[in-house]
Amino acid sequence: MSETPDSAVRTYIENHRAAFLQDLAEWLRIPSVSAQPDHAEDVRRSAEWLAGRLKETGFPTAEVWQTPGAPAVFAEWPSGDPHAPTVLVYGHHDVQPAAREDGWHTDPFEPVLQENRLYARGAADDKGQVFFHTLGVRAHLAATGRTAPAVNLKLLIEGEEESGSPHFRELIETHKDRIAADAVIVSDTGMWSKDTPTVCTGMRGLAECEIVLHGPDQDIHSGSFGGAVPNPATEIARLVAALHDENGHVAIPGFYEGITELTDQERELLAELPFDEESWLRTAKSHATHGEAGYSTLERVWARPTAEVNGIGGGYQGAGSKTIIPSSALVKLSFRLVAGQDLDHVEQAVRAWAAATVPAGIRHTVTFSPGTRPCLTPLDHPALRSVARAMGRAFEQPIRFTREGGSGPAADLQDVLAAPVLFLGISIPSDGWHAPNEKVEIDLLLKGVETTAYLWGDLAENWRDAR
Amino acid sequence: MSETPDSAVRTYIENHRAAFLQDLAEWLRIPSVSAQPDHAEDVRRSAEWLAGRLKETGFPTAEVWQTPGAPAVFAEWPSGDPHAPTVLVYGHHDVQPAAREDGWHTDPFEPVLQENRLYARGAADDKGQVFFHTLGVRAHLAATGRTAPAVNLKLLIEGEEESGSPHFRELIETHKDRIAADAVIVSDTGMWSKDTPTVCTGMRGLAECEIVLHGPDQDIHSGSFGGAVPNPATEIARLVAALHDENGHVAIPGFYEGITELTDQERELLAELPFDEESWLRTAKSHATHGEAGYSTLERVWARPTAEVNGIGGGYQGAGSKTIIPSSALVKLSFRLVAGQDLDHVEQAVRAWAAATVPAGIRHTVTFSPGTRPCLTPLDHPALRSVARAMGRAFEQPIRFTREGGSGPAADLQDVLAAPVLFLGISIPSDGWHAPNEKVEIDLLLKGVETTAYLWGDLAENWRDAR
Ligand SMILES: [Zn+2]
Ligand SMILES: [Zn+2]
Repeated sequence: MSETPDSAVRTYIENHRAAFLQDLAEWLRIPSVSAQPDHAEDVRRSAEWLAGRLKETGFPTAEVWQTPGAPAVFAEWPSGDPHAPTVLVYGHHDVQPAAREDGWHTDPFEPVLQENRLYARGAADDKGQVFFHTLGVRAHLAATGRTAPAVNLKLLIEGEEESGSPHFRELIETHKDRIAADAVIVSDTGMWSKDTPTVCTGMRGLAECEIVLHGPDQDIHSGSFGGAVPNPATEIARLVAALHDENGHVAIPGFYEGITELTDQERELLAELPFDEESWLRTAKSHATHGEAGYSTLERVWARPTAEVNGIGGGYQGAGSKTIIPSSALVKLSFRLVAGQDLDHVEQAVRAWAAATVPAGIRHTVTFSPGTRPCLTPLDHPALRSVARAMGRAFEQPIRFTREGGSGPAADLQDVLAAPVLFLGISIPSDGWHAPNEKVEIDLLLKGVETTAYLWGDLAENWRDAR
Repeated sequence: MSETPDSAVRTYIENHRAAFLQDLAEWLRIPSVSAQPDHAEDVRRSAEWLAGRLKETGFPTAEVWQTPGAPAVFAEWPSGDPHAPTVLVYGHHDVQPAAREDGWHTDPFEPVLQENRLYARGAADDKGQVFFHTLGVRAHLAATGRTAPAVNLKLLIEGEEESGSPHFRELIETHKDRIAADAVIVSDTGMWSKDTPTVCTGMRGLAECEIVLHGPDQDIHSGSFGGAVPNPATEIARLVAALHDENGHVAIPGFYEGITELTDQERELLAELPFDEESWLRTAKSHATHGEAGYSTLERVWARPTAEVNGIGGGYQGAGSKTIIPSSALVKLSFRLVAGQDLDHVEQAVRAWAAATVPAGIRHTVTFSPGTRPCLTPLDHPALRSVARAMGRAFEQPIRFTREGGSGPAADLQDVLAAPVLFLGISIPSDGWHAPNEKVEIDLLLKGVETTAYLWGDLAENWRDAR
């Protein structure tokens, strides 16, 4: 009986599993914490280590790219087929801070294999999910007998994602030609659960601003002046209260302009996910759901734009009391955006709304930080179909679709490369991203390997001449 | 031509003016800053100094009363007339902190006489206004030929007013019998202006609380959960926005219950004051007036109850942004109360309102600090008429009526002694209470002396057998 490609892939993975895990553990031992300056050398070592390993994997090109901050790694393996599509895999090699005293059962930078889970900082976010691409491409070659991947394969592995990717946009604009691709595959997200493998089809965008209201030129006595002059703390509250109408819709005129509404098919697919409100609330550490009328919780977090208060402050916040009218008050707002919303338009709408809402006698300033555009790949996009198909083969079950409520540098790739962004992640909510005792499930990690082993062939076959 | 009592009083004051100012300067040199522990000894010295000076003035009794904090001074001078009313003068001998580097042109504790003003910390608040009672009672005796004042005169001069009077209530309850009086005269406020002498007829009460809203058990990611769970920072803003209706009325059900509305006569008298909105706004360091519809600025700050935000806070308030839904948010509210409002009733109304306003999924706590009751003396009260008449003689012009928007320990005296509280102060807004370069106008200080020289006789004559 001749081996099917699937069993050839599985056999290859099984045979290389131990070495793969050993290598990953070696990488996880490098504490590449980008947010902590005293780990700058470790982040540099992590980049060097990865570039070396990618060369050993077979990538003809594997380079460390310097930035004004931490270095990124770029690798490239041309297909040799002039009709093959080009794919850029995005991930990051830096990790969140971690210390034993935060509640880790073991040293966060000494990987521990226990009950088929690998515990270490970065095991899931994101070293594990970057690293499955190495064994994946080898399995792809071994099972197909090829000497180069079926697609032009590029990897861009950032070193500052956990620090907010401050130089990423500049990096990809500088190297725009070298990273050019027909599709971006982001391996820095997760799936619904172990039993319900999913593909994410989009991330929300993000516009953030700070609004400061200035009232009296200094704090004044609330006994002497209270009730007769505008109080910026009261007015900031009124401004926030005016953000939403009584149905939870964002009440800023023009905010929803241009948005791509959920299709009936998308709503049906989301509704099919085995959503359990109680367990979702436990994950959210919250005690009730609350939001825009007419939408389910998943729709609210994945597919609806929001206005959220990240911080509010003004006046006296210490122990006891202080009878003042504060001189100023501020609010930090973040707006999650969905496909069709334009960052500039949202900014202008917020500015106009604030100007119209703040009363006489209060001066206001609105400061926006650079935003992140939303990204969304239509369900019928051929590259998305390939990802779902490859995952389906690996998991041997149908793949469902999710979205991601957060926002990420993936959107910058979408903009700069003018390419659709796809998400391939095998991490699950219990993996503990950014938390103590982060882990990855070995079975799922190897499903990630297997998915990529199928994906390049599927993409090349079904999406030729994409350029 | 025989001397009228008024000219006798004036002559006496003129003759003793230099010594009076010299004595006051000696007292002002003692830096009796109650809020600074390293000045505890100075506050004690200040009390001893005052008790000594009151004995020299002629008070048969002058004692230093210890408290768990800074000492008070009590002095008593019986009239000898069994029908005479008893008056308790309240003031304080402690002062606000002051340092040259805060913007003082001269050493705050080295009094400087310049252009008929005495500059020093405490010159107006409150040593100057306490001290005019010493020369005042001597002038009263000299002009009338009496050997004891026409009223039973008591003085209670606190040592912790600038630290929030933490032991005052306990002090006056302990010594309730010795300080018993038919009327309290507070000499710790001011007048409208140099050209418009006024008597204050009441102070607002004060109820203060902190409301904390608890949402998620810890800060959660606003990308992952935003738009689908209640956000305590948003909810605290909505709570604050619900404090007032669109006319600026406090919207807490039951808040206005029982209040004594302004009479037409009071509104007319207030409207007669030479109020200049621009200059008031300059004093308020504010850029617009704003408040309850249907009331003037003076009515709003003196005679209407208010709900004011002294502080609001929750979530991230530092530089840049942080995409969280905060776990909790708080607001510090103060309610100014007017005559007829009951502290307990207001507290219950606020608690009921908060419970009814905070949405599901948000836990809330409301914590009230001990409150201060409002006090108000009717315009036709005989003791108030006496104060106005005595001031009218001293200033040689009609006296107008004001109120005080703030709240003070005077209300405790009103409660414990069950006696009306009257206000006799000669300080003016430009005196710079709590600010650098505090001063008192010598002419006005001596008008204070002169007023008390007339007051005791007037009170005894027009308000006999008050007990
Ligand atoms: Zn990540
Ligand atoms: Zn004072």
